[in-house]
Amino acid sequence: MNTKLFFPITISIFIVACTETKFDLKAEEAAIIKADSTWSALSAESKDVDKILSYWTEDAVVIPPGQPVVKGKEALRKFVEESFKIPGFSISWKSSDVKLSPDGKLAYLYGENMTTMLDSTGNKISMPGRGYSIWKKESDGSWKCVVDIFNNPPQ
Amino acid sequence: MNTKLFFPITISIFIVACTETKFDLKAEEAAIIKADSTWSALSAESKDVDKILSYWTEDAVVIPPGQPVVKGKEALRKFVEESFKIPGFSISWKSSDVKLSPDGKLAYLYGENMTTMLDSTGNKISMPGRGYSIWKKESDGSWKCVVDIFNNPPQ
Repeated sequence: MNTKLFFPITISIFIVACTETKFDLKAEEAAIIKADSTWSALSAESKDVDKILSYWTEDAVVIPPGQPVVKGKEALRKFVEESFKIPGFSISWKSSDVKLSPDGKLAYLYGENMTTMLDSTGNKISMPGRGYSIWKKESDGSWKCVVDIFNNPPQ
Repeated sequence: MNTKLFFPITISIFIVACTETKFDLKAEEAAIIKADSTWSALSAESKDVDKILSYWTEDAVVIPPGQPVVKGKEALRKFVEESFKIPGFSISWKSSDVKLSPDGKLAYLYGENMTTMLDSTGNKISMPGRGYSIWKKESDGSWKCVVDIFNNPPQ
């Protein structure tokens, strides 16, 4: 090979390597929203605890208003299982406004949720919430939730 | 120049360019915690509104429990000014557990805060909170808060 070709070839190789961090913004946003809405639908059914837990990272943190901080998979499992024991319990949410880090590996999104349950007299009570969740892209390409915090809107 | 030098020189240039995304994790964590603690000290004084506002991005969002979502600099200015009018108002916080995106451009951190004010009879009331803030690194190298949300711990 002519040594003069080293220059353009080397440049080409490194341009490809350097642009590896580029990503399809719309595709990643859509992937996060899809995972999040599937997760909400699963949670609304209040059945498959393992499947629901699979959307969190091992060290994920959830901070529900007025309750202790829930940190890590085992605590989250207990939190989900205890919630599902509440008569008439259901939670669902809808997220929007996804923002990603420049490398496309970390994201945060706004969400509005609704928790319903039955009170001691059997009447359905609904509690709205709004907050943010933070997601990270795992090595297998999937998005997992690392932080979820919400609070109550004005009454 | 000998054309044989093109290869090592070109490689060196692109290695430098490619590793531009590397960063000093401990230094960035320290920079965020320092900005955050300076911000808390300023807020506790309840005086310099402009300086306090400078820690948020133009499109920052704050979600205080039980209050409307506060979005953008103008709304944040009003929010801060109104808070400072409350008799005996003061807020301060302490953050920890900084996590950064792989490119070092986006971060989130856990924080615990304390808001104090005087009630109608002049007695001091203190309200603890805990939550997460999300920060982004600006083009000038400074860190700014883009999201701040907290709620009340168990009573």
